[in-house]
Amino acid sequence: MTDISEIRLARAYLLAVAEPPAPAVAALIAECGPVEAAGRIRDGAVPDAVAKETTARGGREVTGADLARTQEAGMRLIIPEDDEWPQWPLLSLRVADGRGVAGMTGPIALWGRGPAQLNEAFDRAVTIVGSRTATGYGEHIAAEWSYTLAQSGVTVLSGAAYGIDGAAHRGSLAAGGVSAAVLGCGLDAGYPAGHQTLLRRIAERGIVLSEYTDAAPPARHRFLVRNRLLAALSAGTVVVEADRRSGARNTAGTAATLGKAVMAVPGPLTSRTSSGCHEMLRSGDARLVTTADDVLEDVGRLGIDLARPAEPPRRGTDRLSGDALRVHDALLPRAGRSVQWIAAESGVPVAKARAVLCALELDGLSQRCEAGWRRGSGRGRCDTG
Amino acid sequence: MTDISEIRLARAYLLAVAEPPAPAVAALIAECGPVEAAGRIRDGAVPDAVAKETTARGGREVTGADLARTQEAGMRLIIPEDDEWPQWPLLSLRVADGRGVAGMTGPIALWGRGPAQLNEAFDRAVTIVGSRTATGYGEHIAAEWSYTLAQSGVTVLSGAAYGIDGAAHRGSLAAGGVSAAVLGCGLDAGYPAGHQTLLRRIAERGIVLSEYTDAAPPARHRFLVRNRLLAALSAGTVVVEADRRSGARNTAGTAATLGKAVMAVPGPLTSRTSSGCHEMLRSGDARLVTTADDVLEDVGRLGIDLARPAEPPRRGTDRLSGDALRVHDALLPRAGRSVQWIAAESGVPVAKARAVLCALELDGLSQRCEAGWRRGSGRGRCDTG
Repeated sequence: MTDISEIRLARAYLLAVAEPPAPAVAALIAECGPVEAAGRIRDGAVPDAVAKETTARGGREVTGADLARTQEAGMRLIIPEDDEWPQWPLLSLRVADGRGVAGMTGPIALWGRGPAQLNEAFDRAVTIVGSRTATGYGEHIAAEWSYTLAQSGVTVLSGAAYGIDGAAHRGSLAAGGVSAAVLGCGLDAGYPAGHQTLLRRIAERGIVLSEYTDAAPPARHRFLVRNRLLAALSAGTVVVEADRRSGARNTAGTAATLGKAVMAVPGPLTSRTSSGCHEMLRSGDARLVTTADDVLEDVGRLGIDLARPAEPPRRGTDRLSGDALRVHDALLPRAGRSVQWIAAESGVPVAKARAVLCALELDGLSQRCEAGWRRGSGRGRCDTG
Repeated sequence: MTDISEIRLARAYLLAVAEPPAPAVAALIAECGPVEAAGRIRDGAVPDAVAKETTARGGREVTGADLARTQEAGMRLIIPEDDEWPQWPLLSLRVADGRGVAGMTGPIALWGRGPAQLNEAFDRAVTIVGSRTATGYGEHIAAEWSYTLAQSGVTVLSGAAYGIDGAAHRGSLAAGGVSAAVLGCGLDAGYPAGHQTLLRRIAERGIVLSEYTDAAPPARHRFLVRNRLLAALSAGTVVVEADRRSGARNTAGTAATLGKAVMAVPGPLTSRTSSGCHEMLRSGDARLVTTADDVLEDVGRLGIDLARPAEPPRRGTDRLSGDALRVHDALLPRAGRSVQWIAAESGVPVAKARAVLCALELDGLSQRCEAGWRRGSGRGRCDTG
């Protein structure tokens, strides 16, 4: 059996030489294992497809000393052979990849910084993403819901970008929950510049992840590639605010492809940053969520996380219908009226109206007075009869 | 053949003695015609069910002089025997009634004030309803959309209540369109007090309708009964703002029962007056609409009123994918880099990267410089090559 540290070194090398997603490299690993795959790539003894994915960086090397140095810098390389590898959430990628969906190749390994174990962190997780140019409304929703979800023991996963992502991380951190970030650059890229403190705080209790080595800079295609992990590692994706084109919608689209729940938050039609959400809702690509409980319900385990239906406010006359409602409506609040008048007004025959008035009286909804009947307060029987 | 004025008089009487909806009276009319039905009710020679619907007001009478007086007051009684009777929209009530849905009895006749002919006005109509305690946001949407719909020749139908209803009427009036109101009280009830000028303006160009005689006061059950006409007389109902319980949702529910389009406007989750809309959207009871064009599309005639899909903004790099996107992402905006550097950064083999850089150059997306290649502006080929 191959030593786990040898495997880890091999995967570190594979991650360094292949820009993800690297389907040919992944196929080679599946065929002959990571150690032999790394050896073959070093020797150049690989099919063309693998060569194409690796020649540009073929000269790179990763040594045990390199791995030790990253460990000193607080990072670890998490590999599929580790107990904490999130097999279950990542299975969705494998299924999509198997169906032939492009770009769904699973990660070769993941660089991580933070104490959270991936299998536990992503057992119950929700992805919250949205516009970098969010409004106060969107940031408020993202932070509040993340706080509530974290309090329910749910990991909040996001991309550490400005705007909605940042608010989502902050909300879960404020609740003392596990926040998880997946970056589109290396863990030491220092991006985004204004979120370095936030990323340190996430790494204190949660986990910051990346497929990219060291200080690999951010790039647009890397964000798109990264988004498949944001979509895969949780049970569902909530888009809080998004323009009509946005990375958040890309993540949501991937989540849908992976068979995960896709949710969107409505906002005012007058706000451009909600227009993407509205488009997703109108097209049926996302389900509308109004509270963190709705989110829990949409991603939750049946019967456990079911949101309680909000109770509509009740009025004393709610039970009334048909003749009773007509007669009650005909009553005046203060002035008394005869049964004949009430019958004509309500269109209910006199005998029936009289019976209804007595029934209403029992609930305090009608009241006898000198002139006949008037409306009751609904607070139980009156003594003026 | 019975004279039309005799029929009109009979129906005026039937409307006066039966509180709508009066299914037994309607059945009697269907059986023996309005004139004989009125005669039998006057004589008391009717089945129990009819008697129950009419005895409370059996003593009322309507004479030709009464009708002449209402005509002088600017009202007319519109009856199913009139050419302008909106047969087609009201067919939906007949179908639902025939299916046994309670409360869907069609009107015996309608009191109207205003020049609009009902069959024309309701040929293309949209109902816009919502909260009486609307916000500025909701009133803005209701007024703007009604304006746009009116400009498209669509009649805007509403209930003349404060809030959304009033804004909807005002929007269509401002566009010089046909506004239509259906009241839950008589046309001379003076309700709502603050909307008497608005109702006069609607009656100048459009139509104000009611099943209730003269000054019959408003009542809760009358609004519920009225709502079936708001739902039936248009092709679809838009709820702009609604609390979790509201008359607007009742109208929308009836519209759904009648097989009409039901639409709701999203708003901020922090606004209570949008909560009913969000509930309807989340439950799937309504379709989300973001513009008046969306409304037209949802109620419109296929191929005529189809909303143009909004064009997402385009960027110069939109067509890029795969290797081209990777290479472009690796380019720096100002500093030039060697092809080898770009290949390693992008993970694209050197030979391929060189070909891609040349292709990008044709679109102005890459630019040759002394140090190698840098990012182009995307505004066509540069002369610095």
